[in-house]
Amino acid sequence: MAEILDGKAVSDFFKQEIAKEVLAITAAGNRAPHLVAILVGNDGGSKTYVEAKKKACKLVGFEGTVLYFPDTISQDELLAKVNEINDDPNIDGLIVQLPLPKHINENAVTQTIVPEKDVDGFHDINMGKLAKGDNSGYTSATPLGITMLLKYYGIETAGKHAVVIGRSNIVGRPMSILLSNSSETGNATVTLTHSRTQNLKDITLQADIIVAAIGQPNFVSADMVKPGAIVIDVGITRLDDSSKKAGWRLAGDVDFAAVEKIAGKITPVPGGVGPMTVIGLLYNTLQARKRQL
Amino acid sequence: MAEILDGKAVSDFFKQEIAKEVLAITAAGNRAPHLVAILVGNDGGSKTYVEAKKKACKLVGFEGTVLYFPDTISQDELLAKVNEINDDPNIDGLIVQLPLPKHINENAVTQTIVPEKDVDGFHDINMGKLAKGDNSGYTSATPLGITMLLKYYGIETAGKHAVVIGRSNIVGRPMSILLSNSSETGNATVTLTHSRTQNLKDITLQADIIVAAIGQPNFVSADMVKPGAIVIDVGITRLDDSSKKAGWRLAGDVDFAAVEKIAGKITPVPGGVGPMTVIGLLYNTLQARKRQL
Repeated sequence: MAEILDGKAVSDFFKQEIAKEVLAITAAGNRAPHLVAILVGNDGGSKTYVEAKKKACKLVGFEGTVLYFPDTISQDELLAKVNEINDDPNIDGLIVQLPLPKHINENAVTQTIVPEKDVDGFHDINMGKLAKGDNSGYTSATPLGITMLLKYYGIETAGKHAVVIGRSNIVGRPMSILLSNSSETGNATVTLTHSRTQNLKDITLQADIIVAAIGQPNFVSADMVKPGAIVIDVGITRLDDSSKKAGWRLAGDVDFAAVEKIAGKITPVPGGVGPMTVIGLLYNTLQARKRQL
Repeated sequence: MAEILDGKAVSDFFKQEIAKEVLAITAAGNRAPHLVAILVGNDGGSKTYVEAKKKACKLVGFEGTVLYFPDTISQDELLAKVNEINDDPNIDGLIVQLPLPKHINENAVTQTIVPEKDVDGFHDINMGKLAKGDNSGYTSATPLGITMLLKYYGIETAGKHAVVIGRSNIVGRPMSILLSNSSETGNATVTLTHSRTQNLKDITLQADIIVAAIGQPNFVSADMVKPGAIVIDVGITRLDDSSKKAGWRLAGDVDFAAVEKIAGKITPVPGGVGPMTVIGLLYNTLQARKRQL
């Protein structure tokens, strides 16, 4: 049976590490890091996410603010708010929870956040820096959190074959870059696969590390995994489940029950990548504060 | 024997296509596209490159200017010149030939060129747009020229396995992104390999398309290539050769004589990727002009 990569426990460890750094900052007479999240509309899932992020901020000693706007807000009003935060010297990081209502251009919002406060790493400049291996920017929180998890467990990436499934701008693409860059958490040979990939199984069977980020429950089956491989499951989908009190349960992109018998190490869902995404965000916000000091 | 992918002939075709577009622009009473190249110092190779680019500009009806500066120019003086060109409405594209003298920070220069005139595609914003599949930016000329060559020959990339050897910011990295993006010239499954890759031969033998961009003459040998594969050779190294009048000859990263017996299609060196790089640059400059109109 595979070793469980316990994102919950590791995130607790990193929270303590970050909290120590916050103490050092405030002990020196400086204000704590401050993260602002903007939430537009009433999506239940999105609200859960931003509240979790706010709670994590409090836990590590950050100031965490959530700004709620109705889904009737115009794009101009939202951009004005973003610009106001851009100019506020008491705010280090700003994230806008996606998705946004259809009348708002998400890319316009993302690109309006100044790169220095773009702790989600979605700005073109931060994506460009990542692609060039320039670590003066910010890396998308989920890929960053995954590399922190790998590092915590001493999982070597250099020279390994990593197969990333899914080419989204938020996970798959930056993950593929991060793992192949010349850096301590990179240097892997990376194959990026996606919906147009043929013979996917032939490719995943060669992987020392699999990162599944497609949003299709149980997509990665046991016959796709090389014995001993490290399997990172980014997927998190709500499936109807009448046996649960809530009426649903969370499912990852990996058929966990079957794959854990084959893999060497594996992340569960929930409790794997999810908590590490929050750590990636906190880490970026801490960096933003430290760069300002 | 492999079919030769004739970059010289294809570049002539594209030059004619671009020239037609220039005529349409000037016939409508607008000025022709204008590309400026800055060359610092006296490197013979660099001078050859920029003069070739200038000549290509003239051929397609662009205005082409080369600005020469001594290698004693300070970084501030160079940046001031870049800013002057940024502000000049009669210049559409600016490239600064690399490498620069050691006292000048290349990245500072590259990032000072406004993204709208960065027809080399080196600016963080253009690299970020590429990584996100946003085609409103500019793609590094060599990868762009290679995709134009593939397209000219009707070589399908979708669903194919492409292996890129080398992860440079100018070729390997953007090439890997371009081939895997969701676009007409992408949708390939891409493996990016580099100096830390283990068992490279096992990987290249699976490739339908190999792009070699490492700068090591004859690195790709026949036993690394699957019969029928498409082999793109980006390498261009001067090797001493007393049998040649010049005392040297150009060598690619591929052992051409041996690999052409195995491959399905192959680019020669010279006359393959080199001329297509110039086309990539002209194409970007034409786009810059058209976006301004």
